[in-house]
Amino acid sequence: MIMSKYVIGIDVGGTNIKLGLVNDSGKIVSRSLLNTESYIRSNKKLIDALIGSIEQLIKEKGLTRAQISGIGIGLPGLINPKEGIVKFLPNVPGWRNVPLKKIIQNKTKIKTYIDNDVNLITLGEWKFGVGKKFKNLICLTLGTGVGSGIVLNDALYRGEGFVAGELGHMPLNEKGPRCNCGGLACLETYVGNRVLAAKAGKIFKIKNIRLEEVFELANKGNVRAVQFWDEVATHIGNALVGVVNLLNPSLIIIGGGIANNYKYLGKTIGKIVSKRSMKVQGQMVKIVRSKLGDDAGIIGAHVLVKEG
Amino acid sequence: MIMSKYVIGIDVGGTNIKLGLVNDSGKIVSRSLLNTESYIRSNKKLIDALIGSIEQLIKEKGLTRAQISGIGIGLPGLINPKEGIVKFLPNVPGWRNVPLKKIIQNKTKIKTYIDNDVNLITLGEWKFGVGKKFKNLICLTLGTGVGSGIVLNDALYRGEGFVAGELGHMPLNEKGPRCNCGGLACLETYVGNRVLAAKAGKIFKIKNIRLEEVFELANKGNVRAVQFWDEVATHIGNALVGVVNLLNPSLIIIGGGIANNYKYLGKTIGKIVSKRSMKVQGQMVKIVRSKLGDDAGIIGAHVLVKEG
Repeated sequence: MIMSKYVIGIDVGGTNIKLGLVNDSGKIVSRSLLNTESYIRSNKKLIDALIGSIEQLIKEKGLTRAQISGIGIGLPGLINPKEGIVKFLPNVPGWRNVPLKKIIQNKTKIKTYIDNDVNLITLGEWKFGVGKKFKNLICLTLGTGVGSGIVLNDALYRGEGFVAGELGHMPLNEKGPRCNCGGLACLETYVGNRVLAAKAGKIFKIKNIRLEEVFELANKGNVRAVQFWDEVATHIGNALVGVVNLLNPSLIIIGGGIANNYKYLGKTIGKIVSKRSMKVQGQMVKIVRSKLGDDAGIIGAHVLVKEG
Repeated sequence: MIMSKYVIGIDVGGTNIKLGLVNDSGKIVSRSLLNTESYIRSNKKLIDALIGSIEQLIKEKGLTRAQISGIGIGLPGLINPKEGIVKFLPNVPGWRNVPLKKIIQNKTKIKTYIDNDVNLITLGEWKFGVGKKFKNLICLTLGTGVGSGIVLNDALYRGEGFVAGELGHMPLNEKGPRCNCGGLACLETYVGNRVLAAKAGKIFKIKNIRLEEVFELANKGNVRAVQFWDEVATHIGNALVGVVNLLNPSLIIIGGGIANNYKYLGKTIGKIVSKRSMKVQGQMVKIVRSKLGDDAGIIGAHVLVKEG
């Protein structure tokens, strides 16, 4: 009898922490959830809660330590995956230079790997999602923050200081709105969720309008809503042109909340990239919607553990 | 007695073909030159001339075949280095799908490698120039065409179809001048040599003004000339911000003709990158002038042969 092996995947978000037991086919066979805000300002309490949840996941399924090949954790911030240190989490107070890999490893006696959340999403889509068999791809994540993960020459590319992939901070224009990052006219200042919600509020004169409502309006044929998404897609396409010409990838994956609206976004993004990119680069790049949705990070933890 | 080994480096340009015998320290110990235009429209004649020059370089120095570790050739166009095929040279008519590697190898009995010229310049600067010991760098070449070579994770990154690095076709704005590549507002439409010469002609009211003259005017303190180069540097800096945020390199090398004016360009480029880039990325990237000048391609051929 061959014993199945599992990875414990953990996706730390600003609101929730999602845990999952992932089998070797990339399927989540068991899950649990923690509320991040309950543990805010104390990384020690959060780590204790994580370890409790890890133990419980193993116990519930009646697994032995030997059946767990590793723990993979994605966190929203600046991570040094090599040293296993959480340098800084902008939206989770109390985290600075925490040697998380070592702490979790020592307490659980299970090999542990950490990386930033967007890299885990990218790893998940690459090995178990729409990116299978691709060697050069960009995985764009659209949310309040706009980011991306980069796979080049069949390996995740992290950059000199592990902060590569900030596609949300690709300037779209030489002059433009000031960005939180200190830059000007970054993609995120055009298509970040908060920016879009504010813009939609003004256009549709509805206070606190949710972006889902703007999708619904577009679905009902509201011309101004269709145009709204077309403008979003145009900005995204314009940013991708530079990436396509520079990196010559064969795949771009569009993920994150507003990717749910892919039927409006996809067509225009594709049109812009095909029209503005260089011929060879433009012809060989495929643009697709992400497949794993909210599970991509947990599933990507499996890849992180396997790739080491 | 240890026999020295050499590489024959060849840099094919639209005007001249430069050949050099490069020793294992990256020094050119012997050179020769061919006029590209004499062989235009006939790749056969050009190849015969190349082989003649190769034989002569070996003979002149009294070397044996065994002392030549390989031939490396850089060409200005679309190259498939894996298959050794010149797909297309936009400025040298008569070249389409030429299996150059195989032809040269068969005739000379020396292992041969080919790649595009900007990749060879990048390899040269990386291993024998200012890029020594850097693992993640961008080498920008400023000329009539604006291009770049990319070293990531300590290896040249070529892209899915070997056309990565087109930094000259990074859009600077969502709207702007039409580029030869079919795109809009590409960096090259702001800082390509022809564009700059035309702009300078209008400003200084001198027909066929050379860019060297605009350098000299700046050196003499001409305010309008200083401003001219400051604008060029600002455009270059703006394009680099996107690359720095996306790829998190530790080095950017500025090369090509107008890099001779680095004393004006460098300061403004550095200021823009430091001001507009994300904090971590901006702090860890160094911007420097290329070191090997016109020899970078020939010297890079040595690296191409060694890296395989």
